Amino acid sequence: MNLIWEDLQRVRAEAPLVHNITNHVVMSSTANALLAIGASPVMAHACQEVEEMVSLARALVINMGTLSTAWVEAMVKAGQEAQRRGIPVVFDPVGCGATQYRTATAQQLTAEIHPTIIRGNASEIRALLRSGQGTKGVDSTQTPEDVIEEAGALSRACQCVVSVSGAVDLIVEGNSVARVANGHPIMTRVTGMGCIATAITGAFAAVNPVPFQAAAHAMAVVGMAGEMAVARAAGPGSFSAQFLDALYLLQESDITGRLQMKGSTEQ
Amino acid sequence: MNLIWEDLQRVRAEAPLVHNITNHVVMSSTANALLAIGASPVMAHACQEVEEMVSLARALVINMGTLSTAWVEAMVKAGQEAQRRGIPVVFDPVGCGATQYRTATAQQLTAEIHPTIIRGNASEIRALLRSGQGTKGVDSTQTPEDVIEEAGALSRACQCVVSVSGAVDLIVEGNSVARVANGHPIMTRVTGMGCIATAITGAFAAVNPVPFQAAAHAMAVVGMAGEMAVARAAGPGSFSAQFLDALYLLQESDITGRLQMKGSTEQ
Amino acid sequence: MNLIWEDLQRVRAEAPLVHNITNHVVMSSTANALLAIGASPVMAHACQEVEEMVSLARALVINMGTLSTAWVEAMVKAGQEAQRRGIPVVFDPVGCGATQYRTATAQQLTAEIHPTIIRGNASEIRALLRSGQGTKGVDSTQTPEDVIEEAGALSRACQCVVSVSGAVDLIVEGNSVARVANGHPIMTRVTGMGCIATAITGAFAAVNPVPFQAAAHAMAVVGMAGEMAVARAAGPGSFSAQFLDALYLLQESDITGRLQMKGSTEQ
Repeated sequence: MNLIWEDLQRVRAEAPLVHNITNHVVMSSTANALLAIGASPVMAHACQEVEEMVSLARALVINMGTLSTAWVEAMVKAGQEAQRRGIPVVFDPVGCGATQYRTATAQQLTAEIHPTIIRGNASEIRALLRSGQGTKGVDSTQTPEDVIEEAGALSRACQCVVSVSGAVDLIVEGNSVARVANGHPIMTRVTGMGCIATAITGAFAAVNPVPFQAAAHAMAVVGMAGEMAVARAAGPGSFSAQFLDALYLLQESDITGRLQMKGSTEQ
Repeated sequence: MNLIWEDLQRVRAEAPLVHNITNHVVMSSTANALLAIGASPVMAHACQEVEEMVSLARALVINMGTLSTAWVEAMVKAGQEAQRRGIPVVFDPVGCGATQYRTATAQQLTAEIHPTIIRGNASEIRALLRSGQGTKGVDSTQTPEDVIEEAGALSRACQCVVSVSGAVDLIVEGNSVARVANGHPIMTRVTGMGCIATAITGAFAAVNPVPFQAAAHAMAVVGMAGEMAVARAAGPGSFSAQFLDALYLLQESDITGRLQMKGSTEQ
Repeated sequence: MNLIWEDLQRVRAEAPLVHNITNHVVMSSTANALLAIGASPVMAHACQEVEEMVSLARALVINMGTLSTAWVEAMVKAGQEAQRRGIPVVFDPVGCGATQYRTATAQQLTAEIHPTIIRGNASEIRALLRSGQGTKGVDSTQTPEDVIEEAGALSRACQCVVSVSGAVDLIVEGNSVARVANGHPIMTRVTGMGCIATAITGAFAAVNPVPFQAAAHAMAVVGMAGEMAVARAAGPGSFSAQFLDALYLLQESDITGRLQMKGSTEQ
């Protein structure tokens, strides 16, 4: 609890630059979420500049929601430069499993950029570990608990944290597991809430050197802000505005009152 | 009325996957509109995956708002695969008539993907039938009634439904005509409301096998949600949020109380 | 004051077509801002059509927020056609200074499209004049007053108006200077507010033949709408909706009551 608040204060005080190579659908909403929480987002995908841009950043967020060849090339370049410089990389394999191209690209990116944290839904995590599984678009048909073994195996294989979103989020690193039960079902009726969770994970990874903590804290903050927002929203449209307000306004007492996290994030 | 409510309940119950290859401006707002109404949107435009992605979907929405060569290629591939599989295709010829490239591309797409429903404003529909007409950007300078003959001719030539938006929307299939008078002028002050109507048409086409009905029901629902939203909005910013809420909250009694539709949609 | 209101009435009455080649993050929000103020936005970036599209427009807005090779080519084509036709060009060198590619591209675009108005933050303006300066992403670490000499030098070198946004905006043309103190700090927590200022500058340049006035009036209107919005917002999410509403609702009395502008815009 106090660790989450400390991270959040650090994000707000330091405004870490978070470099995003993300999809067309969520560029605006993830930039707004990062700004609302106090980080400083930059979106840049030109191959000519991604290595230089990421060198200015404190975290890199790679999201393959709307893939194309040139973008994948930029993602690899940026990811490898981040790795060279020790900058944390958060990777969201959006829609992995839905098409062969997505599954192959997610596997390629995982292998080539060595993400610090992989953050996806249960179907994506399962498909990333075992190729050939079908998923229905970008929605998850499994729960995080259904894929806990795959998440652990993926974490061990890639030596990274695996963060699986769902009604109860699962954060896994090797044999360590944390669960976050914050959030609200209406968040599945707003596009890009998963991508926002990925971007916020980048902001926390920028200020907290322990990726397992950063991943868990981000999911908790996104879930708690969602709860605060839904209390003032009539539907998904008003929710989106209230959610950004909640990220901006979130105080220590909100965390104390709302946090539903189990499992050590102290490691 | 009951048919609209039945379609809407089916969308909410079945959450049909709607594959969108759409423009950069409206990707987020159309995804949010589809989620708000209960459908499951996926945005994907890579040539490597569009055929596989559309094969998972129950409707394909092609919107040429921000064209470029690679995207047109993906639109053709996805559209032809949809046609092979009998998946309904909704095509929005955004800005057709504004430039020669747009007009030529709209004609190419119409010929090559055989849309089930063409949905545009009056200028676009006129320009699609008779090339060489100028339009002013993406705004319509004609009303749907002005182009009723062109809409009928286009419907007969392409063997598809033509849905023309305006103060009174016109849905035409051969000699059948339906008119929907729902909506509000502020909807012209929000970007992408036409594109949202196209996407929602895709959601209804996914659950209703009669394209003429699907097209009319979608325009009615978009118009009625617009009316509900404007009652709670001070301007176009608050309108956008309220509109998504209205799509999410729309009940049978709202349809009963508001529907302004003339012409049979039973065929 | 009356001049601003006159411009605003002209935008609302004439709905000038503003052609934008802008970045992926702000396409939707800038289109919505232009619609809210009464202009008619079109977003088009295909090399095949930009010259024809800009020939229909009354202003061209070039924003290099998310660069890539094909887009730069389209920007040059559109900018040169606008110049040939005497259509005002507003250029926003987003992130100039952050990477060598951005700085070089900003310099290339400035040289090749001869913008009527260059609109950026202090870091971008400084970097555009003196290459090799580092900026932190797309945020400004200098204030407009810090770069007043560079703004003047850039204005003289490029024979254009230079509009520098900050807590107090600076509009410079040769030796003429205007300052606009409207606005609110929360505007830095919403993505694309600078890009919106650039787009609104395009709308004013479309109706006011004096670029120095157009640039100053646009910054004043954006700042005043921001003040009106913040009074009804709890955070950056609700602010965004309220800001569009304020652009839409802004009346002469709001300008009279709020305007904080110094320096002649009569020239």
